Amino acid sequence: MLFLQAGASLQFAMVPMNLMRSRADHVVTGWWGKKAFGEAAMRGNARVVWDGAETGYTSTPGSLDGVSANADYLHVTSNETIEGVELPAGFEPAGGPPLVCDASSDFLSRPIPVERYGLVYAGAQKNAGPAGLTVALIREDLLGTIPRGVPTMLDYRTYAEHGSLYNTPPVFAIYVLTLVTRWLRDEIGGLEAMAKINTEKAAILYEAIDGSDGFYRGVAEPESRSRMNVTFRLPSEEQERAFVERAAAEGMSELGGHRSVGGIRASIYNAMPVEGVQALRDFMGRFRASS
Amino acid sequence: MLFLQAGASLQFAMVPMNLMRSRADHVVTGWWGKKAFGEAAMRGNARVVWDGAETGYTSTPGSLDGVSANADYLHVTSNETIEGVELPAGFEPAGGPPLVCDASSDFLSRPIPVERYGLVYAGAQKNAGPAGLTVALIREDLLGTIPRGVPTMLDYRTYAEHGSLYNTPPVFAIYVLTLVTRWLRDEIGGLEAMAKINTEKAAILYEAIDGSDGFYRGVAEPESRSRMNVTFRLPSEEQERAFVERAAAEGMSELGGHRSVGGIRASIYNAMPVEGVQALRDFMGRFRASS
Repeated sequence: MLFLQAGASLQFAMVPMNLMRSRADHVVTGWWGKKAFGEAAMRGNARVVWDGAETGYTSTPGSLDGVSANADYLHVTSNETIEGVELPAGFEPAGGPPLVCDASSDFLSRPIPVERYGLVYAGAQKNAGPAGLTVALIREDLLGTIPRGVPTMLDYRTYAEHGSLYNTPPVFAIYVLTLVTRWLRDEIGGLEAMAKINTEKAAILYEAIDGSDGFYRGVAEPESRSRMNVTFRLPSEEQERAFVERAAAEGMSELGGHRSVGGIRASIYNAMPVEGVQALRDFMGRFRASS
Repeated sequence: MLFLQAGASLQFAMVPMNLMRSRADHVVTGWWGKKAFGEAAMRGNARVVWDGAETGYTSTPGSLDGVSANADYLHVTSNETIEGVELPAGFEPAGGPPLVCDASSDFLSRPIPVERYGLVYAGAQKNAGPAGLTVALIREDLLGTIPRGVPTMLDYRTYAEHGSLYNTPPVFAIYVLTLVTRWLRDEIGGLEAMAKINTEKAAILYEAIDGSDGFYRGVAEPESRSRMNVTFRLPSEEQERAFVERAAAEGMSELGGHRSVGGIRASIYNAMPVEGVQALRDFMGRFRASS
């Protein structure tokens, strides 16, 4: 495990610096996937092998098997916070190039089959700890493929060879991450238990959406729905504004969708208890009844 | 002011990426200056215009006027934590290429004539706040010289154009930095007052060294002595080990010099009160008397 400095966006540059020799393949499922692809394309030969653009980034690929071959790696974004789409559990292809995954927004929300990844990186600030720290797991043989000449602090080997202590790391963020992982282990009961809670939380909201006779409309296709960011629309933007305003008055804040897409977004990361989600579900019922 | 992510070591790579077009000139006064030069030399044409190697990095250049010409910038390290040398107040040359300064270990310890700098950057963790944040001041016209193709998160313009909010910054570290600067302003009385205190603290220890009839020997030449890191030797390494051990037993910890140089190092950053320095001075007297 590497403790990388700065937010995950720096990884969009570090990944191609370290791992791109001839070509990187990218699955683009939303805003963050586009960012990752953009930086890789600045650096060299990057190719989009699956793009959600046609559906407005409301869907994800059914399978990634065979989507990429002869690339140095296949880059995916396991959860897209803005659109609210997530690659389903078990999405990891069995073969093909090393899988590189930006797991910033669903890391530690569920178990993952780490043996299927070449590199998984995650900015800490969604489920793991404070902003300013990125956690990464990298397959050891990939470290041996990194070219010479990568700047020291941008070279994964520097972190691997020095136990992430080549220079002073963001110690406070790492300390909080330790507390969070202990909480996950000792209070929650591990990642399986956390995944169960997260699945339950998401189900509560998606059921409220699906049972609203079309008043609430989920943004993502059902099979691509995120368990971290539940995005939905109301019949009009005016009603969406009223929804956000009245929810805030009841203590439920930050429900407005990202400015680039609008609508409603309920971010229900690990730290959000089931009770918080139930309160939102109840509010959704009241709001609909009064509209 | 830019809030850059990660520690200052990342700047050793970012500075040449952003500002080196044909050549960078480097003043190397110690460990950190060597690191900065090494990264610049990996990137392109970097030249050492002053090197403290001949004196074992115990001295600093008397003047930087004319030391560099026709370079894209002149890079200096204002304080070297390991050797304990510091460029004296007023070291900034009046002309020549833009001055780029790694001020990681003396930033906010004294006022600086910012108008003489092209870029000053400082890792927060010595005088300013927690690790994982680097503060930078850059002259606006230099932003216009940055080439295209620098990765987004490594391009100073990204931070300048988005008020350091292109992605989520290390908000906790920035918050603590705010508390520290308020403390400096409201409790200490500003940087002039802080500099006075720091000068007094350093003088107490250097007087103890100079008044010890050669028992304690300062590492740095008197005119290059750091006010942040006071380095000195004892007659033998055995006595140095005993000094560190007995000081620790009295609650004064971390007095061993960096493993690369040995000896004793008292780091007396802003947070160290005068009383702490006086306690060390008194201990030095007792230790010498009992030796």
